[in-house]
This record gives sequence, structure tokens and C-alpha cells, in this order.
Amino acid sequence: MTTLSPDIQATLEGQGIELPSWAFGNSGTRFRVWTTEGTPRDPFEKVADAAEVNRVTALAPSVALHIPWDKVDDFGALRRHAEDLGVTLGTINSNTFQDEDYKFGALTHEDDRIRRKAIDHHLECIDVMDATGSRDLKIWLAEGSNYPGQTDMRARQDRLNDSLRQIYARLTGDQRLVLEYKFFEPSFYHTDVPDWGTSYAQVATLGDRAMVCLDTGHHAPGTNIEFIVMQLLRLGKLGSFDFNSRFYADDDLIVGAADPFQLFRILVEVIRGGGLNNPDVAFMLDQCHNIEAKIPGQIRSVLNVQEMTARALLIDQGALAAAQSANDVLGAQAVFMDAFYTDVRPALAEWRESRGLPADPMAAYAASGYQERIEAERVGGVQAGWGA
Amino acid sequence: MTTLSPDIQATLEGQGIELPSWAFGNSGTRFRVWTTEGTPRDPFEKVADAAEVNRVTALAPSVALHIPWDKVDDFGALRRHAEDLGVTLGTINSNTFQDEDYKFGALTHEDDRIRRKAIDHHLECIDVMDATGSRDLKIWLAEGSNYPGQTDMRARQDRLNDSLRQIYARLTGDQRLVLEYKFFEPSFYHTDVPDWGTSYAQVATLGDRAMVCLDTGHHAPGTNIEFIVMQLLRLGKLGSFDFNSRFYADDDLIVGAADPFQLFRILVEVIRGGGLNNPDVAFMLDQCHNIEAKIPGQIRSVLNVQEMTARALLIDQGALAAAQSANDVLGAQAVFMDAFYTDVRPALAEWRESRGLPADPMAAYAASGYQERIEAERVGGVQAGWGA
Amino acid sequence: MTTLSPDIQATLEGQGIELPSWAFGNSGTRFRVWTTEGTPRDPFEKVADAAEVNRVTALAPSVALHIPWDKVDDFGALRRHAEDLGVTLGTINSNTFQDEDYKFGALTHEDDRIRRKAIDHHLECIDVMDATGSRDLKIWLAEGSNYPGQTDMRARQDRLNDSLRQIYARLTGDQRLVLEYKFFEPSFYHTDVPDWGTSYAQVATLGDRAMVCLDTGHHAPGTNIEFIVMQLLRLGKLGSFDFNSRFYADDDLIVGAADPFQLFRILVEVIRGGGLNNPDVAFMLDQCHNIEAKIPGQIRSVLNVQEMTARALLIDQGALAAAQSANDVLGAQAVFMDAFYTDVRPALAEWRESRGLPADPMAAYAASGYQERIEAERVGGVQAGWGA
Amino acid sequence: MTTLSPDIQATLEGQGIELPSWAFGNSGTRFRVWTTEGTPRDPFEKVADAAEVNRVTALAPSVALHIPWDKVDDFGALRRHAEDLGVTLGTINSNTFQDEDYKFGALTHEDDRIRRKAIDHHLECIDVMDATGSRDLKIWLAEGSNYPGQTDMRARQDRLNDSLRQIYARLTGDQRLVLEYKFFEPSFYHTDVPDWGTSYAQVATLGDRAMVCLDTGHHAPGTNIEFIVMQLLRLGKLGSFDFNSRFYADDDLIVGAADPFQLFRILVEVIRGGGLNNPDVAFMLDQCHNIEAKIPGQIRSVLNVQEMTARALLIDQGALAAAQSANDVLGAQAVFMDAFYTDVRPALAEWRESRGLPADPMAAYAASGYQERIEAERVGGVQAGWGA
Repeated sequence: MTTLSPDIQATLEGQGIELPSWAFGNSGTRFRVWTTEGTPRDPFEKVADAAEVNRVTALAPSVALHIPWDKVDDFGALRRHAEDLGVTLGTINSNTFQDEDYKFGALTHEDDRIRRKAIDHHLECIDVMDATGSRDLKIWLAEGSNYPGQTDMRARQDRLNDSLRQIYARLTGDQRLVLEYKFFEPSFYHTDVPDWGTSYAQVATLGDRAMVCLDTGHHAPGTNIEFIVMQLLRLGKLGSFDFNSRFYADDDLIVGAADPFQLFRILVEVIRGGGLNNPDVAFMLDQCHNIEAKIPGQIRSVLNVQEMTARALLIDQGALAAAQSANDVLGAQAVFMDAFYTDVRPALAEWRESRGLPADPMAAYAASGYQERIEAERVGGVQAGWGA
Repeated sequence: MTTLSPDIQATLEGQGIELPSWAFGNSGTRFRVWTTEGTPRDPFEKVADAAEVNRVTALAPSVALHIPWDKVDDFGALRRHAEDLGVTLGTINSNTFQDEDYKFGALTHEDDRIRRKAIDHHLECIDVMDATGSRDLKIWLAEGSNYPGQTDMRARQDRLNDSLRQIYARLTGDQRLVLEYKFFEPSFYHTDVPDWGTSYAQVATLGDRAMVCLDTGHHAPGTNIEFIVMQLLRLGKLGSFDFNSRFYADDDLIVGAADPFQLFRILVEVIRGGGLNNPDVAFMLDQCHNIEAKIPGQIRSVLNVQEMTARALLIDQGALAAAQSANDVLGAQAVFMDAFYTDVRPALAEWRESRGLPADPMAAYAASGYQERIEAERVGGVQAGWGA
Repeated sequence: MTTLSPDIQATLEGQGIELPSWAFGNSGTRFRVWTTEGTPRDPFEKVADAAEVNRVTALAPSVALHIPWDKVDDFGALRRHAEDLGVTLGTINSNTFQDEDYKFGALTHEDDRIRRKAIDHHLECIDVMDATGSRDLKIWLAEGSNYPGQTDMRARQDRLNDSLRQIYARLTGDQRLVLEYKFFEPSFYHTDVPDWGTSYAQVATLGDRAMVCLDTGHHAPGTNIEFIVMQLLRLGKLGSFDFNSRFYADDDLIVGAADPFQLFRILVEVIRGGGLNNPDVAFMLDQCHNIEAKIPGQIRSVLNVQEMTARALLIDQGALAAAQSANDVLGAQAVFMDAFYTDVRPALAEWRESRGLPADPMAAYAASGYQERIEAERVGGVQAGWGA
Repeated sequence: MTTLSPDIQATLEGQGIELPSWAFGNSGTRFRVWTTEGTPRDPFEKVADAAEVNRVTALAPSVALHIPWDKVDDFGALRRHAEDLGVTLGTINSNTFQDEDYKFGALTHEDDRIRRKAIDHHLECIDVMDATGSRDLKIWLAEGSNYPGQTDMRARQDRLNDSLRQIYARLTGDQRLVLEYKFFEPSFYHTDVPDWGTSYAQVATLGDRAMVCLDTGHHAPGTNIEFIVMQLLRLGKLGSFDFNSRFYADDDLIVGAADPFQLFRILVEVIRGGGLNNPDVAFMLDQCHNIEAKIPGQIRSVLNVQEMTARALLIDQGALAAAQSANDVLGAQAVFMDAFYTDVRPALAEWRESRGLPADPMAAYAASGYQERIEAERVGGVQAGWGA
């Protein structure tokens, strides 16, 4: 059985992956949102579910919130609730895609009133950050257009920059702004921040605490994502990851489920570029469990990241560098693939047990009775989804 | 000004494009369904809107219905309502994607009870066809899976065939079954009818009145759609089109809006293969007007098809064949592009007027007061969308 | 350490993967063909190299030839040469893409003289098959057009069918025709056999010994290839595989190198559909080693297929079926992924040794001195490539 | 007939599109380079052919050279030859993809000797620029890797930057460096400058005279190219265009042939961003005429750009802005499409004649006897291609 060196164990012990509160709510496609028993009705229940993932994995120490979906009267109470359950509140995600005013844009809107409203929404998010102790404000712009000619892309880019400057100016202390890019959807012709280059060009004008967020599902077919990871780390602008996986579009499937080898390659570049256990680079999930069980789906996800991180750490870097220097293509590839193909799961199970964690977190959750309890207790009320 | 020959005029006069009732309801993405004033509240209002498109264009003589969205107590009454407004009820579209029972499949489901229910739904659709006088039952299977290993794709294919046979057996007279394929969405890993080959292989086992439906938005990036049009016409299995356009995925944008030249090429193959004004090949729209005005969106769409058909008919087929035979690449391309670049709009406007139609149907609609009237009248009630 | 059951061992023992003679010659892109020392100068040397792959793996019992690249005066002598080295001559691949006459097509050409010439070329290939004892004639049509309007796609399809009928009629005994499809390249606008549906529709008209060849690199981005494997096996028309891997287009990289999980999924469907160790389904490689060592590249490739086959055979089919029936998405996925993540390499090494084979074929080849020998001996002459 | 305003005429009169010398040589795919009669044997003949394109169009005042393909003993003589024929020598293109030393990289190579050689090649190109009076040095890096793990992408990026700095430092006067990006090919796993963001990040560190080159064929499927045009103009870093068109990969087809509407949208953004007739933005073609006639192919190409520019200039900007401001999606789209659908060809023909140019340059070339003359005269010698 492969063993994990003390160094690797120490590195893995430092790993933390933030969970998205919305992964515990219902989700779906434009055709249907499927429901599941036990789905949370409010942010407190979402946080409780997230804490359960952390309880069996020790991998998920924080929970990202989405405003307004997770708006509560007393964020201090939500924060204490989280801390009581052993987790913290993390990244605050804004929303510029569900208010009728935002039909044609928000931070990019030509109408000053609407743009002001969108900026104010972000300032409110910063207020929430102050209350929750969150460091990061994450902005995903679902803005764009559906038809060529519909809008002036250039003017929108300039207005976006102005909006971001106003938001950035409100940050204090170590608070950061991370700007997420996305290839397409929900707009079909143009998206205002469609690629890493645009996000980089925008945040570079703001300051050191403005960074790029890389969602692994937000690229064109065939894009070499680990190259972008490398480049953003090189440029000092990789602020955070939204992990998930995809076959076609932004499928938001379980990270590592569609292309495990891609996840491996991404983590290799994270390590190569000094991004692992680096406070500047936040690891988050951004997934939808449309048809599968939600809490187990999140457990599976953080385990996938952990297992693949362990594989990436196993690369014999000396042998790899030697083969690379010799332009020994097959030799270098063999070193690389050897790490990927090594089955780290038994060693990880053993190591987990040595830390007082369940060897098999999926089984531990199934045996815990938590699922049965929430299905019994969470009756009535409105299940949380993307609209609430 | 380019003129349209009597032959071309006669051909264009025979053109009819079926409108989807759901294009008049609200639609959107998984992130948001935007609403618009005047949106119909029931199938009668949808049919009225569709008839308005036909009134100003004479291009849209029928309306496709979707069951259960367009379920009414008295389909005979709906039929008379349509006929009073100068249109007919057309293709009946089934729905296997919104019932909680169908979370993991319908016509492909392993559970006999659920599969029986899905088959029965289609038999009910055939009952509706009998009442509405519709010829075509269109089946789009939104069935599939999200994760490798989740399901047995092969067994599903066999169950699908059995289900289709049972449905096909219920058809009478000239009724037909058309099976639509789709590359992906709402399932992300596998779709049970993902490509024309699968649809063809399935319907070929059923009989002469089982055909393939080609939705122009349901292909992988880079697919040569007109080649498929050619092939299905050659095989005698092109039953119908769902027209729309797309930049990335199944965007359901206005036909001809994303890539006008592709629409031209498709229509060239339709003409080449004898599919124009051929009763065996139904022309339909399948679009969503998420952010633009719906009735004008449909008017624009049928005009786009008409204008591009006129361009395709303008090809100098003799010159094209001569250049093709000589392998004169640039010569053949020049003949082809000359037709595409010819501005047929003035001639079409003149021809419309000669037939007692408005020269500019978009302007005629805007001036008609219809939009203002429905916005004023359709207050209260629940606007129609994909769920109702 | 994972062990391999006697059943799995027996299955793996039956596995054979045909090597392409051209993988041992030089290859490249349109920009550059790189050369390597020791590259064969003629078909005899190519066969010798292929036999070396088989010697260290017992996985590559036959060699595919390409006509005219592998044309020799005495195919009987080549056959004896192969048999002396412990391998046989396999599939004969025709070539309709390098004769100046074929600039605008071959089996699809409008000019009867050229089409006759292309048909005759295939009849000559069948003569070669008679001499070599080969069963399969593989036809990849590099035919198509670069510009819309350049050619009449429909007429070409009909001529193709006529050409194929003439070729098929010449087959005798158990000889077969396999028709390969390809999404694009070297033609950019249209390809005459671009997808499995077209290949299937064409061969279905010929007879039982006409089958489809699936090259894993010949699909649009995002295509679910294992679905096609499933469908062709279901239809009884999967004749052969051309294995390789790709990131973007038809990269012809080492099989399993770009997306190991995809190779796993393909092999799972092969097993599910009864295609493993089934004489009707031939496994071949079709790769280019542009920059890496060629013989080791082929060894790596067949080992990749073997290792992934072993993983696919490890799936606990009972547990998988149970989870699938229960619609336990995560449970089914866990069973599936468990097999993929199991490290079969130590058990395979042990099993190889038990059969008198090197535990590590890559190392055994490196230690054999074969490479040094051919580099020393193969001096002078013209290295084989795609043009010779 | 649509007429062209004096303003539009003046703008069109200022338009110039640089021709690539290599478009007149033979080209092809990895499978075959087709030959044509009359193909130039040396740079002097290439320049002569380019001048012929300019003679009938007045649209192609300069010719880009590729080193070493166009290396001559006396660049002064080549320059005078060009000037005698009414054209100038333009951009100098370097080549880091055909020397055996560059198999694993050039400006990015780990081996200092090879990297030095590649840098020196560029310094030699600058010497050529001094002799030819060229302003721009264009660098397309065909560098990358084929297998994950093969190389250290990050270290290559740093070495690339160092190499570029050394080259940039040698520029004098108004000389510029333009760095071209490309999604993939000839490398399949990673390319060292794969996207506009990387090119931008690299040139931004060099200085004001380092710019990005946008080749319209070098993007992932579905990429919104006009967005990138807008962004680079906004950032002041769009140095040049390589025009061509594509269906799938980097097909290098005639510009505007695959998607005329895309070319229109690109030109609209060029105009919107002040890039038309702006000396900072060079317009070039980068095409291959694999199967079509080469000189007519180039004539067709520059005419396509001219015609589409005229259409883009016809947009009623006032009406467009008004509709955009009102979020009148269909109204804005109508204004936009009206320009695209307007047939500018008759007006352009008339305008050409008014300037003493042939109304139909394609016909004028065909009637000129030039093609017959070169086919008769250019007998013997070696036809130019990518290797010579």
C-alpha cells in the first residue's frame, strides 16, 4: 500500500475547501428543479448541513453565502450558529441576475439608477462581510446580451470598471474582491466578463486586493485550464477557485467526476505555483446536486479534491524535472502518470483514522442518522433553492 | 432591385412555418425567467398571439401545442378558436421532463410503472391529436444521466425502443411520430437520443410514419448541420425541423440570428433534397424569447426563414453545377455566395403588398395596437411559462 | 495489492491490439515532420519494430498495413517475415488522399475515370489482403470540400454508395469492409463520412460483412463516445476501433494519455456490449509519435489499453446494477469509480512475470539494446513517413 | 441601389490589407500538399503575384514576408522589386517551428544554446526589417507540448518573457513587436501563448511598441472574437489582425467564407473602437489556398474584407444607439442586421470604376492573361511552399 510521507500528511492537514450554501438547496435546469427530502428551508439549516460535511471530513471549515438567497435578519446569529457547529462563514457572493431591474445588466447597465442599485447591492454585501467576518466578496456577473447589436459591449466594459472601482473602494482591512469570469450563460451572445483575460485586465486596474476567480466549468471546449491556473499564479492574481466538473457547458457536476485527470493536472499546477495552502488562493466548490443526494454529494466532492491533491503531491518532482530537462517525453509522462494512477485511498483512510476521523466519510455519514433526522424534521416551509 | 420570378413567388407562397405555443409564454434560463407584459395566461391567448403573427405574414398557418402546458378541457373548442383566427392546431409535443416520477427517465425508465405512465402520456397525446386534427406527435426525450456509471445506457436504449413501438402502434391514418435528438441538456453525461444516428436507428425500426426531427440547436460545436439535412432527406427520414439559432449550447435564439449563412446553407440543402413545400417535412420554430418581445420575435423569425428561402431559391443552379463539375472552387463559391448576398428584402416587400399583406410585417404589427391591447387586457391570472 | 481473478486473467490473456505500421514511421503536422534515429526505411523494418512491441507485451499480435505506403513487391515475403517474428499482417488500409487525381474526391468523385481509379485501388487492396491473409479492408475517406457550394454533397453520397457496393462485391470468405468516419480534416467544410450515423447508413446497405470503424479521435468536442460504442454494438455494426487520444482535434496521441477516464468508460461499454475478445470487433491503434520515441510509444499504448481493460473488468457488476436499479446516483458512481481508481499495475506486473513476460515492458525494451541496434543499423536510405 | 456616402468612400479608400507571401506558395494539410500550376518559385515571384492582387483591387499595398521562407541574398533588391510593382514589403514573420533544434521549443527552450539561437533568429529578422523598411516583427510561437507532464509550463513562460525582452530591446524607431496567440496546433496539449490574455500579459511587460496579434482562426469553438477585438482596442494593445476563416480548427480558409456575419461583427467592433484606418492596427491575411486558385483566392479575400467593411460602415449608428439605450432588443438587432443584409456590391463596383479600377476585380484578373503567363513561364524549379 502506498504510504503518505509526514510532509504530505502535513500538507493535506492544512487543506480546506469552502462549501457553497446553495449546494444544499434545490437546483436544476431551465426545464425542472427536482426536490429532495430534507432540503434546508433557511440559511441556518444550510450551515448545519455544511458543518456535517466538515464533521466527517475535516475538509470543509467554511461556508460561502449568497446574497440575497442567504439573507438573514441577524448575520451575527448566523455566524455564532456556524461557529457553534465548528465552521466559519466564508465568501459572500453577490447576485445581479434575478432582479427584474437587471434584465439588461446591473454593474454594466446604461441606466444610472440601475447601476447604482447594483453597486449598492455590493456595498450591502460588504456590510454582510463585516458582520460575518468574511474576507472575500465574489462577483460573478451574469450580465451580457443575447443578440449581436443589442448592446454596446465597449461602453459596458467601461461602466463595469467604474462600478468595480466604487465597490473596491469600500473594502477595508484584508477584505478582497474576486471577479469570476464565465464563457457563456445566462447570456448567449456576449458575456461582460467571459474569460480570464478580461477578469485580469479589470482587476489589475483596481489594486492588490482584487483578484480573479477561476470556475473550472466556465471555459470553452478544449481549454487548457491548468495553463490558466499557472498563468494566474504567475501573475499573482489567482484569488480563488470554484471547483466543479462538466462534460459540455457549465454542468456544475461533482468536482473530479467528469475528468479526474484534469483535476489532477490543475492541482499539479496549483502546487507548482505555490497555490496550495496559500491563504491568497481560496478553494471553493460551486456545484449543483440536481439529482443526487446533496450532503453526500458535497462529502464526495471534498474527498475527490483531497484524494487528487494527495496524488499530485506524490509526483517524484526530481525525476520529473530530470526527464523534462532531457526532453524525455515518455519518461516525464511516466513519472506524471504514475502519481495519477497511484491509489491513495487506503493510505488516506488510515491517515484519517489516525486523526480521529472516519476512514470512510461517506459511510460514516450514511450511518450517522443525520439524513433520516433532517428528512423527518424538515417538513413544511419552503425548501431553499436559487430563488430563496 | 432584385426581382422574384413567378416560380420563386409560387414557391414562397406555399411556405408555412409552424409556431410553438410556448414561444408566447415566459421563458428563461436556470437563473431567471423574465416576465413581459401581455404574456398569455392560457392556450387560447397563445393561439391568438400566434394567429397575429400569421395575420401580418401569411407564413404561420399553424400552432404547435405542448402537453400538459397547453392542456385544455375542450380541445375541440381550442381547435375552433384557432380556425376562427385563421390558423390550425399542429404538432403535439409530449413532455417527459417535469413530473417528479421522471427524475431518472420516462420512456427509458427501468421501473415498469413509470415507463407505463410515460407511454400512457403519449397515448393521451394521440387522443389530443385526434381531437385537434394534428398529424404529428413529436417526442423530445429529455432523458439521460449526469454521471458515468449512473445508469445502464444500453438497457435504456432497448426500453426506449419498446416504448416507441407501443406508442407508434396507436397512431392511425396519416398520423406520424417524429423523434427529436439533442446533444445535451438537461442531462449532462448522457442523453438517450443524442444524435441523428440514434434517432434514425430508432425510428427505422418503427415504420414509415416514424421520422427524425432536427432541431438546429441540438448539435455539438462545429457540426455541419446541412450535411445532416442532406443525409436525412436522402434516407427519407427527415420528418420535421425545429428552427432556432445558437452561439454555444441550445440557446433557442431567433432563427437566423446567430449565423445567417448557416440558415442559408440549410435551406439550400432542403431545396436540393426536395424538402421544401414537401408535406413530409414540417417546418417549425422552437425558440425562447427570454428578453425580447415575443410576438415580434416570432414575426422576425418567420420572416428570416422566408427571406433566406428566397435567397436560396435565387442560386443559379445551372452555373453552380457547371462550376462544381469543373472543380472550379472559387467559381462555385461565387455563385453560391452571390445568392446569399443578394438583398431580397425590397422584392419581398413588394410581393407581400401585391398579395394584400403588409410590406413590413414588423411595422404593421407595431402599428396594429394589438400589443397595447393585450398588455391592457391581460392583467391578473398567471402568465404562461414552461411549467404551466 | 489488488489481485486479478482467474477469469480476468483469462480475459486479458485473450486481448490483442493491432499496431499500425505507420506509427513506426515519421509523422508530424502540416508545419513539420520531425525525424528520429532508427526510423524504419521499409515495411519489413516496420514489421520488425511492431514485433518488438509484441515480444515484450504479448499484446500486439498483428500489424496493419497502409497501401501504398507499405507496398512491397512480394507480400508473401512480408507475411513470412512477420510470421517469423511472431506476428501476422492485419487490416489493410486504403489511401484516397495523396494522389493528385484525388484533390477533389476519390470514391465520391464526379469524374468516372477518377472514381474508377479509386475503386480499383481498393480492389488492389483486396488482392493484397488475399496475399497477406488479412481479413479487414479499412476505408477512411479523406474526401470532402473546403467551401460551401463547392460540391454537391448529396450526389457524392450516392456515388460513395455505388463505389462501396463495387468494392464490397469483391470481398470473399470472411473478408470484411470497415468504413471509418471522421468529423473533419483534411477537408474543412464537409467530410463525406463525418459521423457514425453516415457510416452506419452506408454500410447497412452493403451487407453483414460491412461494418463501422470508430476512431476515438474523430468526433466533435464533447461527444459521448462510449454512447456510440454502445449503440454500434447494439446495432451489431461495430467492426473495429482506432484507438488514440486527443485534446482538441484528431491529435493522434497515445491512447489513454489525454483522458484516461474516457478510455475506461469506452472499455466498460465494450465489455457491457460483448465486444471484448469478440472476433467481430477489432482493436487497433492509430497514432502518431511526432515527438516521442516510437516503439516505446507503442508499448505504452498497448499497456494503457491493457491496464484500463483490467480496471473495467474489476467493476462489481452486481453492486453496480443494484445501485443503478435503486437510482442511487452516488452509490452507482462510487462502484464505477472504485474500479477506475484501483491501481492494477502491480498485479499486472506479477501476472506478466507468471507468463514469462517482462514485468515492466517499457524497461525491458529499454534494456534490450534493440533501439541502439536499429539506430546504428538504419543509416542511409529514406526514413518512412506518410508519403512513403 | 444602395449608395456609398462620400465619408464611406473616403474611409474605404484608406483601407489596405497586407497579403502574406506564403498564400501564393503551395500549402496543405499533414496529409497532402497539393500543387498548382504557376506557383512561384521564389520571393520575387510571390511579390509579383501579390502586386497583381493590388493592381486589380488597390486594396493590398504591402506584402508580409516569412523568414526563412522568403530569405533572399539582397533584401534591398526585393524591396525595389516590390516598389517597382507598386507595393511595399510589410511585416516580417519569424519561424520557430521548422528547425530540428526547435522540436521541444525555441524562445521557451530550456537549453540556453537553442534559446539563444531562436533569439538570434529574431534579431536577424529585425535586420531584415531594417533592409526592407518593415515596421512590424510578428512572432507566432508554435511552441508547446503534446503530453501532460512533458514540460514545465511555468518555467517556459518566464523564459519566453526573457526572450521577448531581448528581442524587443533591439527594435528601433517605430518598429514594433506583435505577439500572436493560438489555441492549439502544432502542439496538442499546451501552447505557450494560447490566448489573448497570455499575449496581453506578456507584451504588457515589454513596452508601448509591443502589441497583440489576433488571428481570427486561433480560438476555441464558440469564442466571441469581436469581444476580444473590443477589449484589445480598449486596452490599446491590438497591433494587428491575421484574417482568415474557419469551421473547426485553424482552417485558414478565405476570410468571410465560413461565417460572413462574424466578419461583419468583427469589423463593427474595429470601427467602434477606432481601429479602422488606424496605423496602430495592421490588417493582414493569413490563409492557405490548398485547393483553390491562389491569386484569385487572395483577390476574393480582400474584396470580402472591403465589402464587409462597407456594410459595417452603413450601420445607422444613431438609430442603433437609440434602440440600445431603450433596451429595444429587436429594434437594435434590426438596425444591425439591416446593414449586414444590404447588398453593397453594385455600389462598390461603381465606385471602383470611378477610381479607374475594374468593377469586377475577379473577372479583370481572369481576363488579364496573367495566370496563363505565369503557368507558361514558371516551369522548372521548385515551387514555393512552407518549407522553402
